[in-house]
Amino acid sequence: MKVTIVGIGLIGGSLALSLKRNGFASEIMAVDNNETHLKKALALGIADEVMSLDQALPKSDIIILAIPVDAAIGLLPTILDQIEGEQIVADMGSTKRDICREVTGHPRRGSFVASHPIAGTENSGPEAAFATLFLDKVGIICDKEFSNPKALTVIEKLYKSLFMRLTYMDASEHDRHIAYVSHLSHITSFTLGLTVLEVEKNEKNIFDMAGSGFASTARLAKSSPAMWAPIFDQNAENLSKVLSAYIKNLELFKELIDQGERDRVFQLMEEANDIRRILNGIELNENNKIKI
Amino acid sequence: MKVTIVGIGLIGGSLALSLKRNGFASEIMAVDNNETHLKKALALGIADEVMSLDQALPKSDIIILAIPVDAAIGLLPTILDQIEGEQIVADMGSTKRDICREVTGHPRRGSFVASHPIAGTENSGPEAAFATLFLDKVGIICDKEFSNPKALTVIEKLYKSLFMRLTYMDASEHDRHIAYVSHLSHITSFTLGLTVLEVEKNEKNIFDMAGSGFASTARLAKSSPAMWAPIFDQNAENLSKVLSAYIKNLELFKELIDQGERDRVFQLMEEANDIRRILNGIELNENNKIKI
Repeated sequence: MKVTIVGIGLIGGSLALSLKRNGFASEIMAVDNNETHLKKALALGIADEVMSLDQALPKSDIIILAIPVDAAIGLLPTILDQIEGEQIVADMGSTKRDICREVTGHPRRGSFVASHPIAGTENSGPEAAFATLFLDKVGIICDKEFSNPKALTVIEKLYKSLFMRLTYMDASEHDRHIAYVSHLSHITSFTLGLTVLEVEKNEKNIFDMAGSGFASTARLAKSSPAMWAPIFDQNAENLSKVLSAYIKNLELFKELIDQGERDRVFQLMEEANDIRRILNGIELNENNKIKI
Repeated sequence: MKVTIVGIGLIGGSLALSLKRNGFASEIMAVDNNETHLKKALALGIADEVMSLDQALPKSDIIILAIPVDAAIGLLPTILDQIEGEQIVADMGSTKRDICREVTGHPRRGSFVASHPIAGTENSGPEAAFATLFLDKVGIICDKEFSNPKALTVIEKLYKSLFMRLTYMDASEHDRHIAYVSHLSHITSFTLGLTVLEVEKNEKNIFDMAGSGFASTARLAKSSPAMWAPIFDQNAENLSKVLSAYIKNLELFKELIDQGERDRVFQLMEEANDIRRILNGIELNENNKIKI
């Protein structure tokens, strides 16, 4: 399979490395509007060739969009206009409702598969890419009934070739749920970074005291604004509800601490401890990661 | 040195294992009001002997309090009343102002060293203990001018024997700073756990979509309420300010997202990205961890 990756950063670059390594792709063509990224992708052996989208399109069996979600929405209809025969397009974005809406009714809608691999790190750019990023992670395919069976099968095979665990859902349901288990984590982490950096202005050595707990909760504050601003924008409605629920719980915590209600603070934490049930599952998956 | 550890959980147990391993302690005596923990500590080779505090006190060169901060405040004056000669007491608690206040003016105040090792995990109990927990971590000693030079030197040697990096500060300053870089992280994480668990009641499979980002930000929600409720209680004043600052920033995020102010959301995230400067330092320390 000849695969074109549009956007050769952390996600696109890792996909390129892994699909080349496991033999799924016979050739990786990289497209990116950042010349430096293209040079690095070649230097790091991430892409076999770099070229413009116009050059890549006619040569590709699969075109993968691994660019910010606003850019993906802008580009997808143009690509669908140009592809022919059995060419397939898939995206990797963290929001799914808007992109699916954008191409509803497009004559080539069936050639598009809307997907979201639950994989990433807080780093970005081709240097951050690595071949094992996707292994054993969840891959979500949305609104599969709008993709034609052949296109769907090829993208399923692509994900399976990476040992990913496939799951299917409606695009709006995806956005509603992902607001809780991914987008919210990013906002709480960005806010933690902001809040502690503000106080650092007056308390110079405050970070000497930061340990692994802080690092773990603030890690996502390193994430790329270019990637995340459009995600928050497209998922604003869901995020607004999620943030309201989070702020309400946080205010409850603060109120109980302010009032010295130690038993009720204890109770809240005991309830939150139930998260062990979930995290043990995730960590198990991380630990069992296939080594290649 | 004969060392008594009061509270043989994650911190006390890890301290016992490491001080025995590196030869600092010739004997570890464990005291705990949880019989099961004592049995496990013996079975796991964490303690040489288990006994009551009254039995342990006269035999100890050093007594370490590794119990919840409210219990430590309750116990410290009684222990100071009973020790003699060059016996030394140190605590490991995450709040320092109240415990230092409690023994101000005590005739044996000089035999007490107030300390806080910046080390821990989200797990608790003796099974969670491991010998390398403290290596290369920061160890804070507070109000050192109230400890006598001999006692101070012994506790400094203890921390240095664990390759810890010592730092000194005023107890109130400690509590003010630690509210930002540790206590806040725990509350944001507990709140994240609570918020997502609430929505799980209606959206059963929501956690299928959770990945490493969620795990990283929610990890601290597994922490022990018995340890953390008294910490939040003793540091309530500082925490209230810190939580207000955090909630204000979070509301700003929400407002900007609600209003579709994508450029300003982008800017906020760019500011937060400066956290890289800090986290790279912490992670470097983690990666350079001495293997023993």
